[in-house]
Amino acid sequence: MPSQPTKDLETFENPTPTRDFQIHIEIPEFTCLCPKTGQPDFATLFLDYIPDQKCVELKSLKLYIWSFRNEGHFHEAVTNRILDDLVRATEPRFMRLTAKFYVRGGIFTNVVAEHRKAGWQPQPRVELAEFAPQSNTRG
Amino acid sequence: MPSQPTKDLETFENPTPTRDFQIHIEIPEFTCLCPKTGQPDFATLFLDYIPDQKCVELKSLKLYIWSFRNEGHFHEAVTNRILDDLVRATEPRFMRLTAKFYVRGGIFTNVVAEHRKAGWQPQPRVELAEFAPQSNTRG
Amino acid sequence: MPSQPTKDLETFENPTPTRDFQIHIEIPEFTCLCPKTGQPDFATLFLDYIPDQKCVELKSLKLYIWSFRNEGHFHEAVTNRILDDLVRATEPRFMRLTAKFYVRGGIFTNVVAEHRKAGWQPQPRVELAEFAPQSNTRG
Amino acid sequence: MPSQPTKDLETFENPTPTRDFQIHIEIPEFTCLCPKTGQPDFATLFLDYIPDQKCVELKSLKLYIWSFRNEGHFHEAVTNRILDDLVRATEPRFMRLTAKFYVRGGIFTNVVAEHRKAGWQPQPRVELAEFAPQSNTRG
Amino acid sequence: MPSQPTKDLETFENPTPTRDFQIHIEIPEFTCLCPKTGQPDFATLFLDYIPDQKCVELKSLKLYIWSFRNEGHFHEAVTNRILDDLVRATEPRFMRLTAKFYVRGGIFTNVVAEHRKAGWQPQPRVELAEFAPQSNTRG
Amino acid sequence: MPSQPTKDLETFENPTPTRDFQIHIEIPEFTCLCPKTGQPDFATLFLDYIPDQKCVELKSLKLYIWSFRNEGHFHEAVTNRILDDLVRATEPRFMRLTAKFYVRGGIFTNVVAEHRKAGWQPQPRVELAEFAPQSNTRG
Amino acid sequence: MPSQPTKDLETFENPTPTRDFQIHIEIPEFTCLCPKTGQPDFATLFLDYIPDQKCVELKSLKLYIWSFRNEGHFHEAVTNRILDDLVRATEPRFMRLTAKFYVRGGIFTNVVAEHRKAGWQPQPRVELAEFAPQSNTRG
Amino acid sequence: MPSQPTKDLETFENPTPTRDFQIHIEIPEFTCLCPKTGQPDFATLFLDYIPDQKCVELKSLKLYIWSFRNEGHFHEAVTNRILDDLVRATEPRFMRLTAKFYVRGGIFTNVVAEHRKAGWQPQPRVELAEFAPQSNTRG
Amino acid sequence: MPSQPTKDLETFENPTPTRDFQIHIEIPEFTCLCPKTGQPDFATLFLDYIPDQKCVELKSLKLYIWSFRNEGHFHEAVTNRILDDLVRATEPRFMRLTAKFYVRGGIFTNVVAEHRKAGWQPQPRVELAEFAPQSNTRG
Amino acid sequence: MPSQPTKDLETFENPTPTRDFQIHIEIPEFTCLCPKTGQPDFATLFLDYIPDQKCVELKSLKLYIWSFRNEGHFHEAVTNRILDDLVRATEPRFMRLTAKFYVRGGIFTNVVAEHRKAGWQPQPRVELAEFAPQSNTRG
Ligand SMILES: [Ca+2]
Ligand SMILES: [Ca+2]
Ligand SMILES: [Ca+2]
Ligand SMILES: [Ca+2]
Ligand SMILES: [Ca+2]
Ligand SMILES: [Ca+2]
Ligand SMILES: [Ca+2]
Ligand SMILES: [Ca+2]
Ligand SMILES: [Ca+2]
Ligand SMILES: [Ca+2]
Ligand SMILES: [Ca+2]
Ligand SMILES: [Ca+2]
Ligand SMILES: [Ca+2]
Ligand SMILES: [Ca+2]
Ligand SMILES: [Ca+2]
Ligand SMILES: [Ca+2]
Repeated sequence: MPSQPTKDLETFENPTPTRDFQIHIEIPEFTCLCPKTGQPDFATLFLDYIPDQKCVELKSLKLYIWSFRNEGHFHEAVTNRILDDLVRATEPRFMRLTAKFYVRGGIFTNVVAEHRKAGWQPQPRVELAEFAPQSNTRG
Repeated sequence: MPSQPTKDLETFENPTPTRDFQIHIEIPEFTCLCPKTGQPDFATLFLDYIPDQKCVELKSLKLYIWSFRNEGHFHEAVTNRILDDLVRATEPRFMRLTAKFYVRGGIFTNVVAEHRKAGWQPQPRVELAEFAPQSNTRG
Repeated sequence: MPSQPTKDLETFENPTPTRDFQIHIEIPEFTCLCPKTGQPDFATLFLDYIPDQKCVELKSLKLYIWSFRNEGHFHEAVTNRILDDLVRATEPRFMRLTAKFYVRGGIFTNVVAEHRKAGWQPQPRVELAEFAPQSNTRG
Repeated sequence: MPSQPTKDLETFENPTPTRDFQIHIEIPEFTCLCPKTGQPDFATLFLDYIPDQKCVELKSLKLYIWSFRNEGHFHEAVTNRILDDLVRATEPRFMRLTAKFYVRGGIFTNVVAEHRKAGWQPQPRVELAEFAPQSNTRG
Repeated sequence: MPSQPTKDLETFENPTPTRDFQIHIEIPEFTCLCPKTGQPDFATLFLDYIPDQKCVELKSLKLYIWSFRNEGHFHEAVTNRILDDLVRATEPRFMRLTAKFYVRGGIFTNVVAEHRKAGWQPQPRVELAEFAPQSNTRG
Repeated sequence: MPSQPTKDLETFENPTPTRDFQIHIEIPEFTCLCPKTGQPDFATLFLDYIPDQKCVELKSLKLYIWSFRNEGHFHEAVTNRILDDLVRATEPRFMRLTAKFYVRGGIFTNVVAEHRKAGWQPQPRVELAEFAPQSNTRG
Repeated sequence: MPSQPTKDLETFENPTPTRDFQIHIEIPEFTCLCPKTGQPDFATLFLDYIPDQKCVELKSLKLYIWSFRNEGHFHEAVTNRILDDLVRATEPRFMRLTAKFYVRGGIFTNVVAEHRKAGWQPQPRVELAEFAPQSNTRG
Repeated sequence: MPSQPTKDLETFENPTPTRDFQIHIEIPEFTCLCPKTGQPDFATLFLDYIPDQKCVELKSLKLYIWSFRNEGHFHEAVTNRILDDLVRATEPRFMRLTAKFYVRGGIFTNVVAEHRKAGWQPQPRVELAEFAPQSNTRG
Repeated sequence: MPSQPTKDLETFENPTPTRDFQIHIEIPEFTCLCPKTGQPDFATLFLDYIPDQKCVELKSLKLYIWSFRNEGHFHEAVTNRILDDLVRATEPRFMRLTAKFYVRGGIFTNVVAEHRKAGWQPQPRVELAEFAPQSNTRG
Repeated sequence: MPSQPTKDLETFENPTPTRDFQIHIEIPEFTCLCPKTGQPDFATLFLDYIPDQKCVELKSLKLYIWSFRNEGHFHEAVTNRILDDLVRATEPRFMRLTAKFYVRGGIFTNVVAEHRKAGWQPQPRVELAEFAPQSNTRG
């Protein structure tokens, strides 16, 4: 039986809730409609979160993203809406959603929104040297 | 009826004023005139802001940018002027404007200015690992 | 006698335990199986650590990575498991593991987890200007 | 009448002294002589400053840079000398000069020096998400 | 008379000891031998330091690097050894050495070590907007 | 009255039919459905053609692309179909269509098809030196 | 019922056999074993072909690639073997296979092999100007 | 007396007419108006030519480009028009003009046109190995 | 027993001599001495060949490259020498060697030499569309 | 005794005149004066040649380049002049000189000129697959 788009977001149990760890997800296939003109809009979404007791299940995330395909949404509102839905489903310690919309009228627009669980504090960041991947024989 | 350049900046209501979120806008089509020589100048503008009650409407932003096409302005002054106009129109919690002017005399000049609403404080930043887009099968 | 995959991680003595220093290791050849479908999964691992008394030996690290080849593991769980194994073997002052999994279902997933030795504090970072390698005749 | 190289640095009045804002200038055409061998040396200079009452005028900056063409200078000393001259001319709130010298003997050398006005404090930085220019249809 | 490899590191007097400034040096031509197999190893070294009274002289640095060509050294140990030698010669306020070793066994290894002079404190960093070189007509 | 998706392709008269010249068009917003599963597929299309008497009008091209949004198509077939439609509408001297489909099952697929007008011959290509844009001060 | 690795390659009918068109496929997840040491080897495969009557089906291609996971093969031989299998299954007008093997012993090896159907001739190539994707607002 | 925009193109005598040589010119500051809407359009122009007896003078080329600022032109027509003007002024052996227009309606359009002097034949190209600039210490 | 540098080049039998195929090898770890000054020189070598009956064995190639470590050689001569040695050992249908030497005196030098077997003719090249790896969701 | 700038170009004997091979040289440190204004001009030179009996000696090439530092030259003329001087000194089978001048007036100019020895014919080029350096673990 083929999959259907759905607003239901499935979750699974965090395998290591004893530790704050980061999950980074990129979704290049978001599309919805412009509420004014009905024309298609496109964006790439970047989701970063620190799970608490639940992680978002990827198959259901894909169907959830699909569910926006025939709906009308403004850029700023849909970014906040998706963040709200993901927060409600996973109740994370921290979540940040970045939406990069395709150029319109010669102007490029991105929106970034985030949520923090009440009382949660990030550990102070340990800053390390950073390296480009596989750079070792390239100087 | 065709659009006309204008210094009026339209706004719309922030859909999620309960949350500090960031809007990033790139405008590669800025041009004005050099006040000394009358020759055209070019720049790409990068606007980042955290809205309070109002967001800038993109169509009117485009017409506003167009309105500089036949005016004379110095680099440092016009960057601060555009920031002032955008702050007056949207009264944001935070706004930063970056102008990258095309090379002149073999020298490259950029200008960066920002505004903070009185009494507004940014939340402490949660630093996460960052990734190049779609890098997952590239090492 | 050819090498065999193994979960044993060999270590050697830290040559300069008097100083906090960083070791950065990239492992582009991680593969295991999906526990649901049995199909192969792939990832590139990035390991950063500050050793205490022991450093991980690279040949044994390679055989350890090989040992996952025919085992079933979920993304979030295997990243935390490898970090746990490396922490148990080397008891480092600090360790961070980043796993970048190959794209699945059009969605890209990375996982980042880290461990800090109880009582260890990083020195405040000295922030310096940073440069792209060999950029000196490239402007 | 053609321009001549000169150590005089002209300034103009800061159009917005009420605000700390940043001016970034790149000068890829610096050349002087090695004081030991008399052979030409080359560098790209990067100047960042926060003006107080005066901004450096670009035409005069170009003639100032030209004035080093036939003079002998060591790398570390000339970087500090140019910073000192620019500070004396503009009395900025903050100024940083970065000199990237062309490769010599297979070794690449950069020098970075900065000046802060007594009593001046930078505002705490508002950290925002950053984006590569025009990346919106590239993920 | 041709130059010879040597462990002697020459220095010259810091031209501006009144100011904390950064010197960044890249050395892509480091090679030594593996102490186990005798086979050649290769690395690119990145040296950053804030001089106190002495700067390292580049010609002698080149001969010093050459002196490792026929010696056996482990990655982690030789990075710390070179840092120790440079610290002894220049007694800097701060020094950081990064060694990026060529890939071995499909695994990439970098080592980063640093030294701070007792009692020295870095000035709080002034964070500025950063720009890719010559990006002004590229958006 | 808002625009509607349509399979009609409008054309306009070639302004310079006396000369073979090339028009290159990129369309990053193609999406249709998988005929087997009904799930959305995505591609970026690259169109290159040498017009004869007619050029394709961009607004109608956009509506034509939109018309595939709710239709099921296989990769190889839809690329050939779009080429056929564009050839029928514009009757070009030469046309090449490249479709880069988003990754599926860890495998990346592109399709390239082209059409030549009967009897048309390209002029022998004049090969020139090629340069990266704005590279002149970058070495 | 889960999928199994298999050497069977499924095909489907070419939708447009009247035209020479190119299919480009990238397979970053190839792994087999070294026949001497039994250790894992990795490669990315790039397949380009001009179909005749049959196209290779992607799901079966994936299972075919998987079937090498536990087999021992030399670099040069396995590249020619995979090309031979694909040619036998699809009988294409033209096929080129490129295998980029991960670095071994500090040395990087790629292998490129191709097959042409007897009597098939490529049309003379129409050389066009080429462009980096979405470069239009980047100079 | 300040410069004025003009359609006059000045030339100077080719210093080496005995040899076919190539001049490559990039003009990132082209702007005109859309003839339908009156809104500004932008493009970067790339000009390549092999001069015969005359070369185009750069100052006059700049004023010529400026002269389009307040005129309405379609993409395909203006590219051919500029080529025609340059050919009339310089009567080159060969000339190619590439116009990369900024994105409109989510679609990117480039136009390439060229002219060959009657009877002129390019020498057969000597194909050499090509290298990225300053790549010698980068692998 | 550890390996030793040697000028002996081992070969193995070409697994598919019935077909012209290309082997591409990169060797970033070449070093020898300057015959004038005795100082170390460095280069990256790129070897491309179409084998006839023999392929070069990689372990012996590595030891061969090592054997130059303590010998004096000029750039142009050593490139031709290595090509001659490889041709003598493998008697290929075609071989090209590219040597990219590290910068000396501010000047970058590469050398490219090739050998063709008497009577061997390359098949006419089938020119296909080319793609950057994994570019499918990158526009 | 320090070196002096000179128009003398030294040569050495081609070590392998029996073979057509290519020497590629990059010279990022060219500077001369504008003959109209006396202001400094800068360029990067790229020299490619196939030697006959003589190769250009790099130290003398460096002093030759230095000799233009205080001379006035136009872009198109100086490129042809340097090519003429190099041809006279080395009498090569083939030589190509590319000069990339720094941006002037917002316009970028490159000049490419070449020389072929009378009666010399290049061998037909063997076209091979090309690869980005060290790309093997990057997909
Ligand atoms: Ca960081
Ligand atoms: Ca950050
Ligand atoms: Ca990869
Ligand atoms: Ca940093
Ligand atoms: Ca370089
Ligand atoms: Ca930052
Ligand atoms: Ca920073
Ligand atoms: Ca530039
Ligand atoms: Ca260019
Ligand atoms: Ca081509
Ligand atoms: Ca873009
Ligand atoms: Ca070419
Ligand atoms: Ca090609
Ligand atoms: Ca992308
Ligand atoms: Ca080529
Ligand atoms: Ca590499």
